[in-house]
Amino acid sequence: MENPEVTVSSCSAHDDENLCSYKRHSSVSQEALLEDQLRRKLKFFFMNPCEKFWARGRKPWKLGIQLLKIVMVTVQLVVFGLSNQMVVAFKEENTVAFKHLFLKGYMDGMDDTYAVYTQTDVYDQIFFAINQYLQLPNISVGNHAYEKRGAEETPLAVCQQFYKRGIICPGNDTFDIDPEIVTDCLYIEPTTSLDNTTMGKHNLNFTLDFPRLVAVQLMFNLKAINLQTVRHHELPDCYDFTLRIVFDNKAHSGRIKISLDNDIAIRECKDWHVSGSIQKNTHYMMIFDAFVILTCLTSLILCTRSVIKGIWLQRVGTAPSLESLVLCKPA
Amino acid sequence: MENPEVTVSSCSAHDDENLCSYKRHSSVSQEALLEDQLRRKLKFFFMNPCEKFWARGRKPWKLGIQLLKIVMVTVQLVVFGLSNQMVVAFKEENTVAFKHLFLKGYMDGMDDTYAVYTQTDVYDQIFFAINQYLQLPNISVGNHAYEKRGAEETPLAVCQQFYKRGIICPGNDTFDIDPEIVTDCLYIEPTTSLDNTTMGKHNLNFTLDFPRLVAVQLMFNLKAINLQTVRHHELPDCYDFTLRIVFDNKAHSGRIKISLDNDIAIRECKDWHVSGSIQKNTHYMMIFDAFVILTCLTSLILCTRSVIKGIWLQRVGTAPSLESLVLCKPA
Amino acid sequence: MENPEVTVSSCSAHDDENLCSYKRHSSVSQEALLEDQLRRKLKFFFMNPCEKFWARGRKPWKLGIQLLKIVMVTVQLVVFGLSNQMVVAFKEENTVAFKHLFLKGYMDGMDDTYAVYTQTDVYDQIFFAINQYLQLPNISVGNHAYEKRGAEETPLAVCQQFYKRGIICPGNDTFDIDPEIVTDCLYIEPTTSLDNTTMGKHNLNFTLDFPRLVAVQLMFNLKAINLQTVRHHELPDCYDFTLRIVFDNKAHSGRIKISLDNDIAIRECKDWHVSGSIQKNTHYMMIFDAFVILTCLTSLILCTRSVIKGIWLQRVGTAPSLESLVLCKPA
Amino acid sequence: MENPEVTVSSCSAHDDENLCSYKRHSSVSQEALLEDQLRRKLKFFFMNPCEKFWARGRKPWKLGIQLLKIVMVTVQLVVFGLSNQMVVAFKEENTVAFKHLFLKGYMDGMDDTYAVYTQTDVYDQIFFAINQYLQLPNISVGNHAYEKRGAEETPLAVCQQFYKRGIICPGNDTFDIDPEIVTDCLYIEPTTSLDNTTMGKHNLNFTLDFPRLVAVQLMFNLKAINLQTVRHHELPDCYDFTLRIVFDNKAHSGRIKISLDNDIAIRECKDWHVSGSIQKNTHYMMIFDAFVILTCLTSLILCTRSVIKGIWLQRVGTAPSLESLVLCKPA
Repeated sequence: MENPEVTVSSCSAHDDENLCSYKRHSSVSQEALLEDQLRRKLKFFFMNPCEKFWARGRKPWKLGIQLLKIVMVTVQLVVFGLSNQMVVAFKEENTVAFKHLFLKGYMDGMDDTYAVYTQTDVYDQIFFAINQYLQLPNISVGNHAYEKRGAEETPLAVCQQFYKRGIICPGNDTFDIDPEIVTDCLYIEPTTSLDNTTMGKHNLNFTLDFPRLVAVQLMFNLKAINLQTVRHHELPDCYDFTLRIVFDNKAHSGRIKISLDNDIAIRECKDWHVSGSIQKNTHYMMIFDAFVILTCLTSLILCTRSVIKGIWLQRVGTAPSLESLVLCKPA
Repeated sequence: MENPEVTVSSCSAHDDENLCSYKRHSSVSQEALLEDQLRRKLKFFFMNPCEKFWARGRKPWKLGIQLLKIVMVTVQLVVFGLSNQMVVAFKEENTVAFKHLFLKGYMDGMDDTYAVYTQTDVYDQIFFAINQYLQLPNISVGNHAYEKRGAEETPLAVCQQFYKRGIICPGNDTFDIDPEIVTDCLYIEPTTSLDNTTMGKHNLNFTLDFPRLVAVQLMFNLKAINLQTVRHHELPDCYDFTLRIVFDNKAHSGRIKISLDNDIAIRECKDWHVSGSIQKNTHYMMIFDAFVILTCLTSLILCTRSVIKGIWLQRVGTAPSLESLVLCKPA
Repeated sequence: MENPEVTVSSCSAHDDENLCSYKRHSSVSQEALLEDQLRRKLKFFFMNPCEKFWARGRKPWKLGIQLLKIVMVTVQLVVFGLSNQMVVAFKEENTVAFKHLFLKGYMDGMDDTYAVYTQTDVYDQIFFAINQYLQLPNISVGNHAYEKRGAEETPLAVCQQFYKRGIICPGNDTFDIDPEIVTDCLYIEPTTSLDNTTMGKHNLNFTLDFPRLVAVQLMFNLKAINLQTVRHHELPDCYDFTLRIVFDNKAHSGRIKISLDNDIAIRECKDWHVSGSIQKNTHYMMIFDAFVILTCLTSLILCTRSVIKGIWLQRVGTAPSLESLVLCKPA
Repeated sequence: MENPEVTVSSCSAHDDENLCSYKRHSSVSQEALLEDQLRRKLKFFFMNPCEKFWARGRKPWKLGIQLLKIVMVTVQLVVFGLSNQMVVAFKEENTVAFKHLFLKGYMDGMDDTYAVYTQTDVYDQIFFAINQYLQLPNISVGNHAYEKRGAEETPLAVCQQFYKRGIICPGNDTFDIDPEIVTDCLYIEPTTSLDNTTMGKHNLNFTLDFPRLVAVQLMFNLKAINLQTVRHHELPDCYDFTLRIVFDNKAHSGRIKISLDNDIAIRECKDWHVSGSIQKNTHYMMIFDAFVILTCLTSLILCTRSVIKGIWLQRVGTAPSLESLVLCKPA
């Protein structure tokens, strides 16, 4: 803004309007006219929309476009945020629910201190999780279901990782170990829950050799449908949860930390039917997006045009505007 | 305060008193006298009550009124605050008590993590609340009672909201739903608690279809009397509590959040008798309020008067006070 | 420090020593001599101990006294603090212990949320506290004992306060109450605990009329001896605890807050015998205190003396010191 | 940097290069030449490695050494930190595990409020810890073992400290005490756990005289091997834990604070065998350390050399450089 033109325009704009005009009428030389034109152009160029309206009564439609752009982008952002927020909340709540369903004696806010310290507790935890899994349909208050591969449901995998060989005698400071880690899995079909026997040591030949044990993992998949979107006239989405409960004994410190993590995948539901007037209002969104793109494009073009004009004015205006400064001063 | 009068008054007030007086005695011209009068007036006008007292021995009764006003308004505020505080505290305590009475296993500070995760827990919670409600008179330590409509007591309403139709099969990503929400209520009379049978699934045909369930609400009204005001020689007020316990399953995430909210209404008790000398000391309050209004009015009038006087002095004082400044200086 | 003397002393002290001395030897006039003396005095007066030592080799014994004073006072403070800290800690720990002994299901940090909400809980709490009190000697791990009045031990008082008359019917907004508060007490002798029957509703005709109930108080006295002081070669003190468990139902809000407060009184034990060499080392303390007083007195005297001297110097020094400033400058 | 040479170098370096050079060619006097040499030396001396490279194309190998040094020391620090971190973590986790194993009803974050208040609780705690110790191999999930002295395992010591004589009657403010503290220990062999009888009052003649009791200590040693290092191709270390559970009754305040502390000692394991390619990579570390020492030494030598050179230049340069400053200015 420090280039001479500005000074000119401002000078002739506010302070010595009278002086300039007097000078203009006294001498009718050529360059005076040119310079005068230029000054008017510059004056107009550096006006704000309001001034332009007063000067030539031009409607400030460019300003309107800018405001429209801001509003539309904001709306778009908010909509995007809300829809995401619902997904995130649904995932969070499901994770909390799974922790309460599959972790024995879990309470909120225990995540970082949740661990077991005795062998019996480890077995209890494992069998508790298994039995909860087998009876899930009768227990859960959400609409959780087992994942299906074709006809039968995917089983729950109980995998234990242990050192291939490990004879650990801390008593006399000796050990003989093969650090290679072997993984040994046991698969339990949900269908085994039809008879109401609870799984346990007796009917599940599952034992842990704690000195060699590195980790136990329970892995299983669940599915759910996020129905609450129906009430906002959107289509419910289908969720796949991949759950993993890890009993971590890497440290062999007498403390087995238990953690449950829940990976999530969102898909459109295959086959659905919703009574009453509900439409997946994606095409509305699409139209709206198109409008946004259009507006942004227009504002881009206008901006470029104005910049170019500015540069041109500067190149033309430099020489005369200097002497114009001189002329503009009282003799 | 930067207007010339001030300068004059201060000038003649403190520093060159002698000089001004000398000038005053040397020339006895008319305007000198007028100006002198004006100066005295101004001097007096800008004095604080204490100075006025020393100058003309006028009692500072205006100051007194101002102080009185401040004290009275403060007292009024405190009284108002205290009486409100007691109402609020009573409401708070009742809400806490209801949470402990009607929510199974509730402990202080659990409000935001208080939820259930299994179907059996939901039933337990509901039936627990119902039974507590039926036995309230024998359980509660406060003076809580059922609301009466005419002769019989208002029942407890157990309302469940569910989707009109809902066949949800997350297993194979299909669902058939009618998002319209149906509400189905069950009313339980307090009188049913006369025989000591606890309510449960067996004698209360109440089942929940969890996949369709949106929410369960327990709604009931209780009444109480806030007796503690008696000890401050005020009349006890009668309270109506509208309680609503909400089991929120909108999300169908496997987590049903339970919340209890308690709307309150305060009324004068209909028919009461208190032995000993107790009077609803409202008329005392009324008299006090009248006094406050009076004081405020007086102080308002005084203030306006002083402002007007000030303006008048300024208008009159401007012309002479300027030359008075000149005269006030040594020749 | 802005009085002219200072300038003099400093001037002649540092910068133009030579100039001043030259002047001094050239003219041997009387006032020059006097002024010279005065200047020396002033110089010395404003010296710090270290400078004084270099100037006249005077030992800085005053400084020593000041340091000694500081050290002694600090020691005194520390000793006082420690002995108090032990008493306070003992009281705190006993209060915590009593809360765990007499309040059913109390846990640390529950003080402000510790309350009951059902009638049965109130009775349980009361009878629990009573029975704990009766079996105290077999339960407590501290050396707590019942207070004795003459031969028999002081009983536990169970006092309930209730409105003289109170017919509260919140149901139809009516009540008839006599706000006068009646207190009715029941005394239980510790000796009644000899037979191993637990106190309860059946053998203790104690009932509460909750609508009228204002408060229940359990009051009893216990005694203890703070033995740990023995290990610091001090005599153990005897403590009297006055315990009061308050069930506060003023609000009749359905929440009865329970609080236990513990007043403490410390006395010398009457009759004691400690094997081995132990002496209540009070006389040591007394000697030490005497020393402290002495030191403070000395430092006070010295300080006053110095102030007086300073004032005298100022009065004498003013007149000559002014011209001395003139003289001190090169002609 | 404020010594005159710098000014010279900088002067001739940047500003009046031409003037100096003119002066240099006009007069070919001897000292001018010397001074010129000196100036060049100084110029070079105060150059940074980059400038030196441009000036004489000398490779910045000294800079390289410095950088190498920084990198190596950092790496060494990181390695050291990591190995320590693992040890600390292992110790922490074991301590937590022991607290959960040996302290009845312990939960995380209870350390400072963990205490007992009744005699039965004290006995329970002690016998619980003893029995847990006796069954440790069947309980612990870590590889903990009893310490062995020769053939048999070291026993658990239950030591109680009490006043030699103590007849405390707080009731009538009298006591007769011998503050000398007697310690009386009871040793329990792990082998006694072969028969599955739980230790208790009946089969363990162990009684506490609470009025005299000062403290009870359970002391025992355990051993463990930190296997997780195997997975970083390091050799596991053997750990000795010296555990002490203290029941502190010094205060006789009715509150016995329980604390468990765990001293740790790390040793190389005596006799070990690890399958697969694993080598205790200490010699690698040793070589690396040697390199670090070497680098640091080199950088030290270079630094000293530069300092010496600097001092020499200063001594030589002072005299001429002063007049050089004069010469450097235009006549």
